[in-house]
Amino acid sequence: MSASTLEKSPANAPGAKAAKKAQPPKGVINIGVIGYGYWGPNLVRNFAELDNARMHAVADLNPAALEKVSKRYPNVYTTTDAHDLIRDPDIHAIAIATPVSTHFSLAMAALKAGKHVWLEKPMTETSLQAQALVEEAEARGLALHVDHTFIYTGPVQKMRELVQSGEVGKTLYYDSTRVNLGLFQRDVNVISDLAVHDFSILDYVFDKHPIAVSAAGINHYPGTPENLAYITLFYEDGFIAHVNVSWLAPVKVRTILIGCSDKMITYDELQPSEKLKVYDKGVSFTDDPEKIHQMRVGYRAGDMWAPNIPNVEALAVEGQRFVESIRTGAASPSDGRFGLRMVEVIEAATSSMRGQGETVHLKRKELAQ
Amino acid sequence: MSASTLEKSPANAPGAKAAKKAQPPKGVINIGVIGYGYWGPNLVRNFAELDNARMHAVADLNPAALEKVSKRYPNVYTTTDAHDLIRDPDIHAIAIATPVSTHFSLAMAALKAGKHVWLEKPMTETSLQAQALVEEAEARGLALHVDHTFIYTGPVQKMRELVQSGEVGKTLYYDSTRVNLGLFQRDVNVISDLAVHDFSILDYVFDKHPIAVSAAGINHYPGTPENLAYITLFYEDGFIAHVNVSWLAPVKVRTILIGCSDKMITYDELQPSEKLKVYDKGVSFTDDPEKIHQMRVGYRAGDMWAPNIPNVEALAVEGQRFVESIRTGAASPSDGRFGLRMVEVIEAATSSMRGQGETVHLKRKELAQ
Amino acid sequence: MSASTLEKSPANAPGAKAAKKAQPPKGVINIGVIGYGYWGPNLVRNFAELDNARMHAVADLNPAALEKVSKRYPNVYTTTDAHDLIRDPDIHAIAIATPVSTHFSLAMAALKAGKHVWLEKPMTETSLQAQALVEEAEARGLALHVDHTFIYTGPVQKMRELVQSGEVGKTLYYDSTRVNLGLFQRDVNVISDLAVHDFSILDYVFDKHPIAVSAAGINHYPGTPENLAYITLFYEDGFIAHVNVSWLAPVKVRTILIGCSDKMITYDELQPSEKLKVYDKGVSFTDDPEKIHQMRVGYRAGDMWAPNIPNVEALAVEGQRFVESIRTGAASPSDGRFGLRMVEVIEAATSSMRGQGETVHLKRKELAQ
Amino acid sequence: MSASTLEKSPANAPGAKAAKKAQPPKGVINIGVIGYGYWGPNLVRNFAELDNARMHAVADLNPAALEKVSKRYPNVYTTTDAHDLIRDPDIHAIAIATPVSTHFSLAMAALKAGKHVWLEKPMTETSLQAQALVEEAEARGLALHVDHTFIYTGPVQKMRELVQSGEVGKTLYYDSTRVNLGLFQRDVNVISDLAVHDFSILDYVFDKHPIAVSAAGINHYPGTPENLAYITLFYEDGFIAHVNVSWLAPVKVRTILIGCSDKMITYDELQPSEKLKVYDKGVSFTDDPEKIHQMRVGYRAGDMWAPNIPNVEALAVEGQRFVESIRTGAASPSDGRFGLRMVEVIEAATSSMRGQGETVHLKRKELAQ
Repeated sequence: MSASTLEKSPANAPGAKAAKKAQPPKGVINIGVIGYGYWGPNLVRNFAELDNARMHAVADLNPAALEKVSKRYPNVYTTTDAHDLIRDPDIHAIAIATPVSTHFSLAMAALKAGKHVWLEKPMTETSLQAQALVEEAEARGLALHVDHTFIYTGPVQKMRELVQSGEVGKTLYYDSTRVNLGLFQRDVNVISDLAVHDFSILDYVFDKHPIAVSAAGINHYPGTPENLAYITLFYEDGFIAHVNVSWLAPVKVRTILIGCSDKMITYDELQPSEKLKVYDKGVSFTDDPEKIHQMRVGYRAGDMWAPNIPNVEALAVEGQRFVESIRTGAASPSDGRFGLRMVEVIEAATSSMRGQGETVHLKRKELAQ
Repeated sequence: MSASTLEKSPANAPGAKAAKKAQPPKGVINIGVIGYGYWGPNLVRNFAELDNARMHAVADLNPAALEKVSKRYPNVYTTTDAHDLIRDPDIHAIAIATPVSTHFSLAMAALKAGKHVWLEKPMTETSLQAQALVEEAEARGLALHVDHTFIYTGPVQKMRELVQSGEVGKTLYYDSTRVNLGLFQRDVNVISDLAVHDFSILDYVFDKHPIAVSAAGINHYPGTPENLAYITLFYEDGFIAHVNVSWLAPVKVRTILIGCSDKMITYDELQPSEKLKVYDKGVSFTDDPEKIHQMRVGYRAGDMWAPNIPNVEALAVEGQRFVESIRTGAASPSDGRFGLRMVEVIEAATSSMRGQGETVHLKRKELAQ
Repeated sequence: MSASTLEKSPANAPGAKAAKKAQPPKGVINIGVIGYGYWGPNLVRNFAELDNARMHAVADLNPAALEKVSKRYPNVYTTTDAHDLIRDPDIHAIAIATPVSTHFSLAMAALKAGKHVWLEKPMTETSLQAQALVEEAEARGLALHVDHTFIYTGPVQKMRELVQSGEVGKTLYYDSTRVNLGLFQRDVNVISDLAVHDFSILDYVFDKHPIAVSAAGINHYPGTPENLAYITLFYEDGFIAHVNVSWLAPVKVRTILIGCSDKMITYDELQPSEKLKVYDKGVSFTDDPEKIHQMRVGYRAGDMWAPNIPNVEALAVEGQRFVESIRTGAASPSDGRFGLRMVEVIEAATSSMRGQGETVHLKRKELAQ
Repeated sequence: MSASTLEKSPANAPGAKAAKKAQPPKGVINIGVIGYGYWGPNLVRNFAELDNARMHAVADLNPAALEKVSKRYPNVYTTTDAHDLIRDPDIHAIAIATPVSTHFSLAMAALKAGKHVWLEKPMTETSLQAQALVEEAEARGLALHVDHTFIYTGPVQKMRELVQSGEVGKTLYYDSTRVNLGLFQRDVNVISDLAVHDFSILDYVFDKHPIAVSAAGINHYPGTPENLAYITLFYEDGFIAHVNVSWLAPVKVRTILIGCSDKMITYDELQPSEKLKVYDKGVSFTDDPEKIHQMRVGYRAGDMWAPNIPNVEALAVEGQRFVESIRTGAASPSDGRFGLRMVEVIEAATSSMRGQGETVHLKRKELAQ
C-alpha cells in the first residue's frame, strides 16, 4: 500500500479527547468499509465512484465476502479484522455496516482513532450510546454521519421544499403505510427496520420533533422481534403522525399521505412514475347558512399536479454530502444529532409498544451546543 | 288508510313490559321510517321493494323532504311528527334514521308501543342506552336490528366464510385504511362514522371481541369532532386489529388486509372488479442452517386467487333478514346485542383517543341470556 | 290530456316539404319518447327533469315496459303505437330509442309531422338514410339531434378546450382502447356500438374528418356481428387515429391517449378521480453532436397535471342543448350533419373490415350549406 | 492468452462449406462478443456467469467502450476489429450485438469461420439474408441463435403452457399494447424495435404463423423511421392478433390480452406482482328464450387466478439454451428458422404500413427440412 499523501492530524493519536479539532484531509479521502453483508456492497460501489474519495479497504468476518471484494475491486485491500482499518493511518473515514449491536464499540474506536465515521441506521442500540458518539465526534471535530438514505431521495427533497416554502399551508398530519412480506430481522424489530424511515422523513421534511409516542405491535412468532407495529407520534402544535409497518403483509405498500391546510401530498414509492402528487384540495369553513348543518365545513377540490422529479441515486448524493462534511466541517443533514433523535424515537416507540400503547413522553438528551 | 288485517298484539299497549311476548304479524309487514335525510331515502326505496313488507309512512321534520316522498310514493303517508308513526296501530316495524342523539328516546318509545325496531348505526350515544334498548326488546320479544350494512355485502360474507372454514389458518391481524375527503359530521366523530364499519366487520368475520383498545386522534378544526383517528384493538389470543380513519385525506382509500398463518386476504372496495384477493403466501419456519441467520423464517409465495363474488345490494339482503327476524323471532346478524358491542368499542376507542392513546380495557355489559 | 298552449306551426301538416320553416314553440316543450328498452328510461328520466320541457308520452311495443312508465310517471301517457306520438299535436319533439333498423322510418315520419327529432346513435343504418333525414329537417327548419352523449361529458369538453386553444401544440395521434366482456348486440357490430364513441370524440375534439379508413375485425361466433375490431383513421395533415374495440375482453378498459407536439393527454374513464391527465412531455430535436446517433431526438419530461373536472351528467347537458336548439334554431353540437359523418365513418370502417383491412377512402356526401 | 484446450474442428478452416458437420466443443465454450453498446454489456455479464462457458473477447469500434470491458473483466481481451474474434481459433461462439445493417456480413463470416452464432434481434435486414444464414448454419451443423429474449421469460413460458395444454380452450385473439416515450431508433422502425417482441411471443405461445398482415403507421418527424404502428395479423383458423406499438406515448404501457373460449389471460409487465392473470370468464350460447334478443349469448364470470411465477432472468435461461444447442446440436427455441419467420413478418408489416394498411399476404420462404 502506498503511503498516504495527507498530513496526519494530531487527532489520530488515541485518547486525544481534549486535543484540538481534527483538520480536514487535503487530498483524496480514503475510505474503509466494515461489513460486506447486505448493505455493504452498495456502500463500496458508491464510495468507489465518488469524486475526491477512494475505496481503500474492506473488513468482514466472512472470507467469502472478501473474495468477492477482491475480484471486483482488485485495488482495495481486505481483512477479517475490523481493527486493521481503524489502525490504518491511510484511512480517513470509516463506514460501519455491521449488525447494530456492534455499532457503538466500532464507531467509538474509530472516532478515538481520529477517523470520520459513517454509520448504518439505526445508529446504535440505545440513545445513551448515540449521545456518547455525538459528544466524542464533536469534541474531536470529526464528521459523524448516519445513513438515513431516504432523506436524500428526490421525492423527500421535494416534500421538504413544498412544506418549508409554506406553499402547502399549515401542516396537519403525516400518515405512512410501509408493509410487505419482509425478511424477519434477527436483532431489530420492525420499528427499527422500517418505521425509522418515516421518523427520518418526518424530522427532515417538517423540522419538528415529537413530544410523545403511542405504539402497538406484536410478534406473531415466539422468539422473534415484533414484526408488525402501529406508531402514533404527537407534536406540540397539534400536528400528528402515524406509521403502519409490517413484515407480514401479502402485498407491498409504500404510501405516504401529508395533509396540510392548503394542499395535500401523496407519495407512492412503488408507482413507476408520478410517485409524488400535490392536490389542491382541502377543507374550508363557511358561513353559508345552507351548510351550517354540515358544521360550516366546505370542500375545495382543485387540480392535481405531479412535479417531475429527476431520478438520482440517493446513496450517491448522500456520499457526496458525507465527503463535503469531512471537507468543510459542516454537518450533513443526517449527522450524529439527527441519528440520536432517531434512536430516541425508536426507544420511545418500542417502550410504548411493549406497554400495549401506553403513551411515552419524549425527553431530549441534553447536548451542549 | 285501510285498516290493518293483522291481529293486534297486547304488546301494543304502552307499559306492557312484563306482558307476554309479541306475536309475529301474520300478513304483510307495514313499515314506518322516521328520518328522510341522507340515508332515509335508501331505506324507503329498499323497504318498498321487499317481499312481504310494505312502506306505510314516513316522518321527517322537514316538509320539503316529505314532499319528495309523496311525489315518489303516492301511497305512503307522511307526517312531521314521528310519534304519529309510533302511535299508528297499522305499523308493525319502525326504522329510525335520525341523528344519533335521538335514537334512544325514539327507539324506546317505539319498543314500548310494541313496534319492531330498525336503528341506524351507531345504535345509541352510550352503551347504557343500548343495553336498555336490548333489554326492552328482549323482554317484549320484539326484533331490534342495527343497520351495520357492511356485514351483508358479498365480500364480507366471503371473508367470514374463508375465516370460519379454517381455510386461511390461524388469524393473525386485521388492518384497515378508510380515509377520504369526507363530510365532517356534526354529532359524531370519525370513529363513530367510519371506524364502526371495521368494528362490525371484525365482530362478524372473526367472532372475536377485543379486550382492550388504544386510540389516537385529533380534530384539526376547533369545535368539530375528531376528524382523524388511529385505533388498535387487542384480543385475548394475540390477534391484533388496526383501523385508520380520516375525513381529511386527499384521496379515497378503502383497503383491508387480513393476515393468517396459511393464507392472506386483501380487500380493495374501490376496485371495479377483483376486490377480494386470497394470497397463498406466508411465513414458515425452517431448520435449514443456511437460513438460521434469518431467524429460521422462510417465505411461501404461491398463487393468488380472486373469487367471483356476485353483485347484490347489501341493503336488500339486510332488509330481508330484518323481515325474517320479525317473522321468525330469530335474531338478525346485527341485532341489538351486536349493536351494543359496537357502541362499547366506540366508547372505549373514543375514551382512549381523548387520553392520547392510553389503553382502555373493555368490560362487557352484563346481559341476561 | 289538456290541450297544448302552443301555437301550431303549419309544418305540422304532412307533406309540407317546401313550406316555410317551423316556428320554435313558445312555452314548455312537450316530449314524446319512442322505445323504453335499455336506453329509453335514461332519456325519460332526463327529459322529466329538464327546465322548460315536459315528458308527455312514451311508446313501446312491450306493455310491461309501459307499466313501469305509468308507475313511475303517472302523468305521462303510454301507447304501444309509436304513431300515436307522431300524430299527437301536443308533442313538439320526439326522441327515438328503438333498434337502429327502425330509426329512418320513424324519424322521417316524425319530421314530416313537424316534430323536432332526437335520435339514438348510430343515427341510421346507411349514410343515404342519414342524408335524407338531414335534408328533410333542414328544409323544415326542425331540430335534428343525434345522441352522441360522450361529447357532452366534462373530460371530452376539457380535451376539446386543450386541443382547440393550441396549448398542446400540433396534434399527432389519437389512440383509444374500449374493450370489455360486453353484451353482444343483435343488429349492430362492435364498430357501431363502441367505436362510434371514438369517432364522435375525434370529430368534436379535433374538428377534423378522416380521409381514409383501414379496419380489421372478426366475429368469433357464427351468425353474430363482428365482436372485435381494430380501426385506423387517416387524416390529411398526417394526424392518425386508432381505435381498438371488443365485446370479448376479460377486463374492462377505457383509455385514450392523445399525442401532441407540446403536451400529451391521457384519459382513463374508469379511474375514480384524475381521469384526465396532461403531460408536459414530448420529443424535441437537437443539434447536440453527442445525440446525433440518436437521430437528434431528445425527450422532455416535465410535470403532469390533472385538471379538476366538475362531475355533471352528460345527458342532462345534452338535453339542455337539444331544448336550446329547438328554441333558438341553432344546431346542437351533435346535429344531423354530425350524425351523418358518424354513419359515413362506420360504413367505411365496416367495409374495410370486411375486406380484411383494405383501405377505404371517404368521400363526403354533398350537402347544400 | 493461454492456448485453447479444445480440439479444433475442421469447420474452423474458412470455406469449409461442404465439409462434414462441426463437432461440438468438448470443454468450456469460449465466447466472443461483437458490439458493446446498449445491449452488449448485458450479454457479456450473462455469458461471464454461465456454467461451461467463458467470456473470451469483446470487439467494439469505440475504444472507450473497450476500456470499460477491461476494467470490469480484466481477463477478457478486447479489440476494435471484429474480425480478430472471427479469426481467433480459441473462440467457439460469437454473439453479434451491432446495428442490424451489419448483422448479415458479420454472421456469415463467423459461420464460414466455423463459429456458432448468437444474433441480436431482428436477425437481419431482409428475409433473404436470414434465409442465407439459416442455410449456411445448417449446412455446417453450427448453432444459429437469435436473441428473442421475451420467449424465455417466466410469464411467456406460462402463457405457452396454458395455451398448449388446452386448458384455456380454443384460442380466439391476441391483443398487445407496447408504447412509451422511447428512444427513436436510427436504423429500424418501431415494428422492428417493439412489435417484433409480440411476433416472437405469438409464434412461441401459439405455434401458429400468420397468413396475412395489415398495418398502419406513421413517422411524425421527417427523416426518422416510423415511430408508431398498428399491426393486425390474420391466421388460417380465424385467430386474429393485434399489436399497438409507439415511441411517442406519454406513459409506458405493456399489456397483453389473450382471449380463448374457456379462459382469458391478461399480462401486465409493469405490475410489481401478479403480472399474469387467468380469468374463468367468457361467452356461452343459450337457448333460453328470455335471452334470444341478446343473440343467445350469455356470460360466464368466474374466479380469477394469478399463478405464482418464479422470478428468473430470461437472458440467463436463454444463454443456457444457447450453450446446450452448441453442445447437443438440438436447436434452441429461437433458432435461425424462428428468427427468419420474425423477419418475414416484419417485412410484411412494414410493407403493408407503407401502403396505408393494404393487406400483405405472407408466403414462407422454402427451406429444405
